[in-house]
Amino acid sequence: MNTSHQPATDDTQDIIPADAKHFACLCKSGEALQADDEVRWLEAFNDLTFPPVPFPTRRVHDVAGEEMLRRLVFRHHTRLRETDAGPLFPADIRHFMMAVEIIADFIVEACGGNATFTPRHGAMRMRERHFPFAIDERIREIWLQELLAAFDDVGFPDAVRQEYWNWIEPFSIRMITRRTTKEQPRRHPYANAAASLAQAVTPREMR
Amino acid sequence: MNTSHQPATDDTQDIIPADAKHFACLCKSGEALQADDEVRWLEAFNDLTFPPVPFPTRRVHDVAGEEMLRRLVFRHHTRLRETDAGPLFPADIRHFMMAVEIIADFIVEACGGNATFTPRHGAMRMRERHFPFAIDERIREIWLQELLAAFDDVGFPDAVRQEYWNWIEPFSIRMITRRTTKEQPRRHPYANAAASLAQAVTPREMR
Repeated sequence: MNTSHQPATDDTQDIIPADAKHFACLCKSGEALQADDEVRWLEAFNDLTFPPVPFPTRRVHDVAGEEMLRRLVFRHHTRLRETDAGPLFPADIRHFMMAVEIIADFIVEACGGNATFTPRHGAMRMRERHFPFAIDERIREIWLQELLAAFDDVGFPDAVRQEYWNWIEPFSIRMITRRTTKEQPRRHPYANAAASLAQAVTPREMR
Repeated sequence: MNTSHQPATDDTQDIIPADAKHFACLCKSGEALQADDEVRWLEAFNDLTFPPVPFPTRRVHDVAGEEMLRRLVFRHHTRLRETDAGPLFPADIRHFMMAVEIIADFIVEACGGNATFTPRHGAMRMRERHFPFAIDERIREIWLQELLAAFDDVGFPDAVRQEYWNWIEPFSIRMITRRTTKEQPRRHPYANAAASLAQAVTPREMR
């Protein structure tokens, strides 16, 4: 077979580099495309973009203190347990507490406190650690919403709330492992986070 | 509070554009990062990249014919039912057959045959249609492996196997909705697909 319809079939053409600019792409992603006499191309695109993440300074730990950071993590996760994110955590309360303790170790170390996470568990690699769990865009927003409520519950110091949020809000996008929409995850700047999250997170039964 | 440690907190700084080039990123994604006196940045990166997709010409339908395309889809999915991808399809055999029929409608139309999919179901939008299903990188490779076997089972014409594959192999990456690895999905060029898929797809119990 060597008709004019036949596309290039040598092996070097078989895999097209993702950034190939020299192919005529007749159709943007998402559009319908009908078969034609010529090969027609769907354009390359990226799915999820992880924005840059400003890691907190030591100031967060220096102002809040280790005990307050641990109380925040514990309260946050006690809240999560009652949400649609709950099934992601161990059902057994003892196992749940052990998991939360490890998360608190990470948070304390990331904020400039005692380093107990990496000596026990190795490099942080938070996205990899979340691969076993199906975390979609909505679960991320529930997680953020409950954190904001936990700030108030434990009286987290106002002076470091925004720095903590500016870190964890973009960082949380990296924990998404289950995509349910073509859109990029919504951003929730601290100044308006309570309102923008309340609008974003609707109960499943109301959607 | 206005110490030298305090990061910029005005609202315009609150959300950082994903392509911001002017921030000093001290740490590539995946590396450990310790808290410091200064804010330190994790670099932005993209998760999944969807490569360009060469849509098949009418030649695929003209050579294979509608009946052969439908037999291929039916055989492919009958095989999938017996794999770890099986639970993604309706368990009830009547519902399963209806789902396969709709998939065959899509395949026939995409290959240049009768247009019965879009008139009934609207624009193809295949990634969106797969959002309800958790399809990870391994499920994609099982899907490809069973397609290759189905080519042989139904005697799909050699003359159009590669063109069909060159379309469906990159296209299948767009159906991934569940990420379990930081790596981009493996590519499986037609020339070596049987071997590269056999190597990639190991039974869960052997991993």
